[in-house]
Amino acid sequence: MPTSPTVKLNNGKQMPLVGFGLWKVDNATCADTVYNAIKTGYRLFDGACDYGNEVEAGQGVARAIKDGLVKREELFLVSKLWNSFHDKERVKPICKKQLADWGIDYFDLYIIHFPIALKYVDPSVRYPPGFFYEDNKVELSKATLQETYHAMEELYEEGLAKSIGVSNYTGTLLLDLERYAKHLPQTLQIEHHPYLVQQDLLDLCKRRGISVTAYSSFGPQSFLELDMQKAKDAPLLFDHETVKSIASKHGKTPAQVLLRWATQRGVAVIPKSNNPDRLAQNLDVCSFELAEEEIAKISSLDQGLRFNNPLNYGVPVPIFA
Amino acid sequence: MPTSPTVKLNNGKQMPLVGFGLWKVDNATCADTVYNAIKTGYRLFDGACDYGNEVEAGQGVARAIKDGLVKREELFLVSKLWNSFHDKERVKPICKKQLADWGIDYFDLYIIHFPIALKYVDPSVRYPPGFFYEDNKVELSKATLQETYHAMEELYEEGLAKSIGVSNYTGTLLLDLERYAKHLPQTLQIEHHPYLVQQDLLDLCKRRGISVTAYSSFGPQSFLELDMQKAKDAPLLFDHETVKSIASKHGKTPAQVLLRWATQRGVAVIPKSNNPDRLAQNLDVCSFELAEEEIAKISSLDQGLRFNNPLNYGVPVPIFA
Repeated sequence: MPTSPTVKLNNGKQMPLVGFGLWKVDNATCADTVYNAIKTGYRLFDGACDYGNEVEAGQGVARAIKDGLVKREELFLVSKLWNSFHDKERVKPICKKQLADWGIDYFDLYIIHFPIALKYVDPSVRYPPGFFYEDNKVELSKATLQETYHAMEELYEEGLAKSIGVSNYTGTLLLDLERYAKHLPQTLQIEHHPYLVQQDLLDLCKRRGISVTAYSSFGPQSFLELDMQKAKDAPLLFDHETVKSIASKHGKTPAQVLLRWATQRGVAVIPKSNNPDRLAQNLDVCSFELAEEEIAKISSLDQGLRFNNPLNYGVPVPIFA
Repeated sequence: MPTSPTVKLNNGKQMPLVGFGLWKVDNATCADTVYNAIKTGYRLFDGACDYGNEVEAGQGVARAIKDGLVKREELFLVSKLWNSFHDKERVKPICKKQLADWGIDYFDLYIIHFPIALKYVDPSVRYPPGFFYEDNKVELSKATLQETYHAMEELYEEGLAKSIGVSNYTGTLLLDLERYAKHLPQTLQIEHHPYLVQQDLLDLCKRRGISVTAYSSFGPQSFLELDMQKAKDAPLLFDHETVKSIASKHGKTPAQVLLRWATQRGVAVIPKSNNPDRLAQNLDVCSFELAEEEIAKISSLDQGLRFNNPLNYGVPVPIFA
């Protein structure tokens, strides 16, 4: 059974380099998907309030533990703080609710999902709350990123989160965060693929000892099902001659090459798949080595092309402007 | 004599749309340059601690006032807080020193130069302090942007600065700033030219009532004298067919078209020139109108090409990553 190597975080914890991303996993299939992924060898699951499937993901985990496939301490369960819970007094209660949804008593990693503070929505009113309020408006909160991060540090100190991280932060936000942080984050999660390499940001994280996790490793692919025009306009990375020729040379799939391009550079990945074969293939992406020139060739596809920008969903909050 | 129209800031003050930028103006010629620019009709001067010429700029201003060319209240004098004075207790003393250097008792606009906090350097030790410390190292301070901004608000409330602003901030920093600010900044100053349009950031500022000032309106031109390879590799905007053909149609210079492209969209500009004719031409950039298609054509030259990035000067602080 393939397993993933781990990366050592700046607090000494070990995080699998390859995990399973729960974004867009249907509620109806989520428990089975998680169960099967554990059976296949996955140990890291990357969830979030916003994905709306934490209860079901937790059911899959519980069944796998009950069936003796895995122990809790062998798993690395990740979740994220949604934008509407940035006010400092909201952070711990929602984290506890999310833990209850999963049926666990700590997250291995808990992440600020976006550097966006939205007005509080009580979970009994709307959950997950999403970006939009009445009349399709976006309502901001005054919680600063500093306030929210300090509340995250409290979760870390209390052990509700064994590690903490941020997502969708740019370099300039990390530079401000390190001025007010008591504990630097263990990880940064960002959109990262050959069309959006962000080498300067990766370099900063490396200098600071912050581990990077890539989401949307396949680039436009993940956004086609959202009917995003920008994604439809970009040539698929799976079909790109550079990626295909390197894949065929190594006897691997383009997806495996894209994931290996990240992991070989120390960047963790969290692909998802509903297909059992691809599930296994995606996990088996640390057993071959790309040549330095191959990595450089893939990196040279960079065009600063970002898909997961709130502006692309009609949310007028330009965090990447 | 040409004069500049003004833009009304969010606190009701009027700021000239066209000013004179003091970056890279030699100490030897600075006083005369400022004096002559006032004579030509300039009213806004954009200075900074880091430009190292505030004493001389103030001498030019004093002579112009003494000679009856202008009154202090007709001028709009701008300066900037350097990175090494971000610690809250350093802000007022250095602002007062800069006022003393200019020989005035208030700035019309005082701006945080970069979202970068460097270790304090006493002016008696090194002034202007620049980016580099001993052994060519960059030493950071722990002052958060929030701390520094609150100190700027105190200057504003005390009247040492009639307006305050920020520079080189990205959208995500402005979104955080508005969570902690008591007074939103009046202006944002950014690199802005047809190769770096940043429409999303301009849109955010418009929605928030923050006026934008463009620096390096001519793009690569400003960075050639710094011997920056990236600037040498980019085709000069003055030679660009799109800009040249629009200029010739209007009987204007390419420089005037580039400045008009900004001012017609409400973006203030601060060109500099040592040549008296160009000095006057640069000020005369609100007396003709570009067609909407011409503006769109110039905007379409956008390629996200940024020159004034600290990384390009060997400063490992990736504020734009």
